[in-house]
Amino acid sequence: MTDRDTVVSTVRFTVPRPGQDVPAVVWRPAGPPAPGRPLVLLGHGGGMHKESPFFARLGRRLARELGYAALAIDLPLHGERTPPAERGMSPLQRREHLGLDAWRIRNAAATGQAVGDWQAALEAVRAQATRPGPVGYLGLSMGTRFGVPLLAAEPRIGAAVLGLFGLTESDPEAVFARAARQVTAPVLFLLQWDDQLFPRPDGLALFDQLGSPDKTLHASPGGHFHVPAAEIDAAVRFLGAHLGVEPG
Amino acid sequence: MTDRDTVVSTVRFTVPRPGQDVPAVVWRPAGPPAPGRPLVLLGHGGGMHKESPFFARLGRRLARELGYAALAIDLPLHGERTPPAERGMSPLQRREHLGLDAWRIRNAAATGQAVGDWQAALEAVRAQATRPGPVGYLGLSMGTRFGVPLLAAEPRIGAAVLGLFGLTESDPEAVFARAARQVTAPVLFLLQWDDQLFPRPDGLALFDQLGSPDKTLHASPGGHFHVPAAEIDAAVRFLGAHLGVEPG
Repeated sequence: MTDRDTVVSTVRFTVPRPGQDVPAVVWRPAGPPAPGRPLVLLGHGGGMHKESPFFARLGRRLARELGYAALAIDLPLHGERTPPAERGMSPLQRREHLGLDAWRIRNAAATGQAVGDWQAALEAVRAQATRPGPVGYLGLSMGTRFGVPLLAAEPRIGAAVLGLFGLTESDPEAVFARAARQVTAPVLFLLQWDDQLFPRPDGLALFDQLGSPDKTLHASPGGHFHVPAAEIDAAVRFLGAHLGVEPG
Repeated sequence: MTDRDTVVSTVRFTVPRPGQDVPAVVWRPAGPPAPGRPLVLLGHGGGMHKESPFFARLGRRLARELGYAALAIDLPLHGERTPPAERGMSPLQRREHLGLDAWRIRNAAATGQAVGDWQAALEAVRAQATRPGPVGYLGLSMGTRFGVPLLAAEPRIGAAVLGLFGLTESDPEAVFARAARQVTAPVLFLLQWDDQLFPRPDGLALFDQLGSPDKTLHASPGGHFHVPAAEIDAAVRFLGAHLGVEPG
């Protein structure tokens, strides 16, 4: 456990990608690089961006409390990658502008792009490290939509916090359910019992399908946007337990 | 947090009750009584008894790690209260001897007795204290069968760990579901995703019905008897967070 007075560096950079570069940010303890330092990928939710307050706070917290680095990117159609016609709209306005179903279909269609973006960003950060350390993932809601296929494709991710998302019977892809079964990393899955965006049975079905032998579901009363602070504490504890303390 | 070298006292006593006295045990840090010390009631499961290894370990752990007292009793038809014809049988033999349904009906019928036994035992322990402290409850499986009505009847219990039990549609009593809705204390509910004794939907339904505004469900893969050690850690942490540290 690193001293709570640790100064946190925020480093912004761009990951070159064919077609569209990806804005990225890393939070890490200030000072010289630490070989073997764990890295957590923070996958933001729909309508959010890489430095939405929840993620900026969490990235700084992981650096301060655990001595980790945390990486966030603007996911497709979000942050600096927002389509021009939707700039200046709030997340709710954007969903209403498109309609919830069209919003979801568009996000789902961006899955391949998002997974490639994450892998390129991860590669860029690891290339900078003297000795790359263990990698974790935390992404809820749209962060789970993209996180599940990422985990299925990326064996370097050794632990993940997922949730606020579900399997639906009308899933037009079925690739998502298949990806869920291919996940093997330990998972903490956060479910909101009264989630108005992803009904309870769909969330339970997704947890059920996850292939990870080591998985735990935490359910709390309340809606999609009311994950209790204690569950964020649990998420940090889970990542710390699985990725280990900074060896530096 | 009390020193890990704390010596734990084990005190056995009998709670006088009309008809049948109740064998009881308290684990607590050795030394003088501590005013305001939290007390956790440990409700054993079907076929177990007040000093089955799981409870003896947990009672000693609560004393050692949190400085708490822990109280267990032989519940009706268990431990020293086992009907003579069933003495010497293993828990599995006892269930097979009666049949699972008859076993459950008999346990359910003992609910009023069990709640009264618990209240008398709690009263006896509190009467010994200079200044009684907060009270918690931990009981899984049959410990939840009796724990839910106890929590509904006993406002002095300020936090509870429950689980490995469920609501069934064929619940002949319906008093159990009503008691669940009357629970108001914060609850951590442990559910085993592949519980062979209490099917998943029944456990989810019981969690759903609990009246507590502050409740959390933790689900883990595996059967009824395979609660992960990490969830016992979570239970101890939950009790510690809700009952506070020993003020003594």
